[in-house]
Amino acid sequence: VTALGHVAIVGTGQVGTMLGMALRASGDVGGVALFDVDPAAMEASMARGAGDRALTSAAEALDADIVILAAPVPAIVALVEALGPRARPGSLVMDTGSAKRAIVEAMRTHAPGAVHAIGGHPMAGTETPGAAGARADALAGATFALCPVRDDPTALTRAGALAEAAGARPLAVDATEHDRIVAVTSHLPHLMAFALAAVAGSGSSDPRLTAALTSTGFRGATRLAGSDPASTAAFLSANADQVRAAVEALVTALDELATHLDDRDAVRELLAAGGAARARLTGER
Amino acid sequence: VTALGHVAIVGTGQVGTMLGMALRASGDVGGVALFDVDPAAMEASMARGAGDRALTSAAEALDADIVILAAPVPAIVALVEALGPRARPGSLVMDTGSAKRAIVEAMRTHAPGAVHAIGGHPMAGTETPGAAGARADALAGATFALCPVRDDPTALTRAGALAEAAGARPLAVDATEHDRIVAVTSHLPHLMAFALAAVAGSGSSDPRLTAALTSTGFRGATRLAGSDPASTAAFLSANADQVRAAVEALVTALDELATHLDDRDAVRELLAAGGAARARLTGER
Repeated sequence: VTALGHVAIVGTGQVGTMLGMALRASGDVGGVALFDVDPAAMEASMARGAGDRALTSAAEALDADIVILAAPVPAIVALVEALGPRARPGSLVMDTGSAKRAIVEAMRTHAPGAVHAIGGHPMAGTETPGAAGARADALAGATFALCPVRDDPTALTRAGALAEAAGARPLAVDATEHDRIVAVTSHLPHLMAFALAAVAGSGSSDPRLTAALTSTGFRGATRLAGSDPASTAAFLSANADQVRAAVEALVTALDELATHLDDRDAVRELLAAGGAARARLTGER
Repeated sequence: VTALGHVAIVGTGQVGTMLGMALRASGDVGGVALFDVDPAAMEASMARGAGDRALTSAAEALDADIVILAAPVPAIVALVEALGPRARPGSLVMDTGSAKRAIVEAMRTHAPGAVHAIGGHPMAGTETPGAAGARADALAGATFALCPVRDDPTALTRAGALAEAAGARPLAVDATEHDRIVAVTSHLPHLMAFALAAVAGSGSSDPRLTAALTSTGFRGATRLAGSDPASTAAFLSANADQVRAAVEALVTALDELATHLDDRDAVRELLAAGGAARARLTGER
């Protein structure tokens, strides 16, 4: 028997597939069973090596020692409502959604206290949706946020061990704090990328001329707009209040820059402050 | 004698260095002379192989068949004012600035009609300032915008040949049209990246927690905020009116998204439109 026991992953998109691949490669799990409501998605994930067994229903996942819900945020909430009350005492139930309050609240309400429930957010991935976008090593060194549901050290320990097995660094953080920060560091960048692409596409110019005048900078700045609109909309909506606050802060910063555009020195100072903040936060220069 | 003759590049930052490296590698130029007001910058550029000869003044560049002004935008305008009247009849004078109206107007005013003057904007590069950030192959397949100063087919032909020698695709475009489109496709992405970094850095949260909760998405979305604040401020200011219009369009798009955040389907539709625009403009999916 391996350290972490048997794992079941419900939802085999990019995140679920990435986790399955990383966990199987670690040798720390007894096996990885997969389920997805879309048989084609499950087959694609199995073909990438994310699991050793395909389940025929989400409920079968409850037989595992660790149940990982890796669907879009609203689907995770629905799964918690449906499966939480039937989860096995002693099993670990976690998820991978990028907005955590709604999920943690659902776990608190619907998972009995004897179940070790905890929210999770592996902070790595690619913009390519589905199993095709999964990379087994994407989690290497990445933060795996863990948001407690209750005072349950066992849940935190076991979920932390799973995150480490996948190559990530577990980080315990309150769900509200997580949602507030991630609104700026992840959800807002997604929103901006889509908005920039829409603005570039809606101008009155010849689209071919606009396309010719896009550089590597534009491609990079809009890369997140290659994300799946449905699952992106799902996490933006699940964190609507904090994302709205982040948009307001961004608009204030943009307005300040726009106001000073004629004053090169003032613009340079504002930009320098942003560049310094980036260097501090990312460690990149 | 090679096809394009002797080239002199004034300004040996990333762009001037990249061009010098690409032109020398092409074998289509007789030689590349370099000048920079900063001797260390010129040495670094020579060390990267961007030139075969170091000049001791910008005026010496006028001896070349092709003079390329590759400084920040306001410095290019100043160079055109200073050197334009003394440029040799029959020589080609061009530049690499990313905002073109002010430069093209200066060329029209200060370069005699016997000089083949034309604005240029090679649309590729990296975020690393200086010669260290130059990549000889960065221009491969990239657009090299050429903005006519006068009705001068010779200027267009010779500048186009130079762009092709550097591996790029020449594209003739009116300076006003260029500035309007590039305000959205390049200048706005720069502004957004710096603004996002500033917002993330100015929150009330523990900076270490914020840093831990940044993912690859944030790094990518703020990559352009690694650009040099001074030269970025220079081109933003030189294109202030169009950048301001681009910011307004972006704020409108952000506000529309923020307004609909509670309505997942509406958000998804707005995002899908942005994603489709990106796919059209970049050819990426």
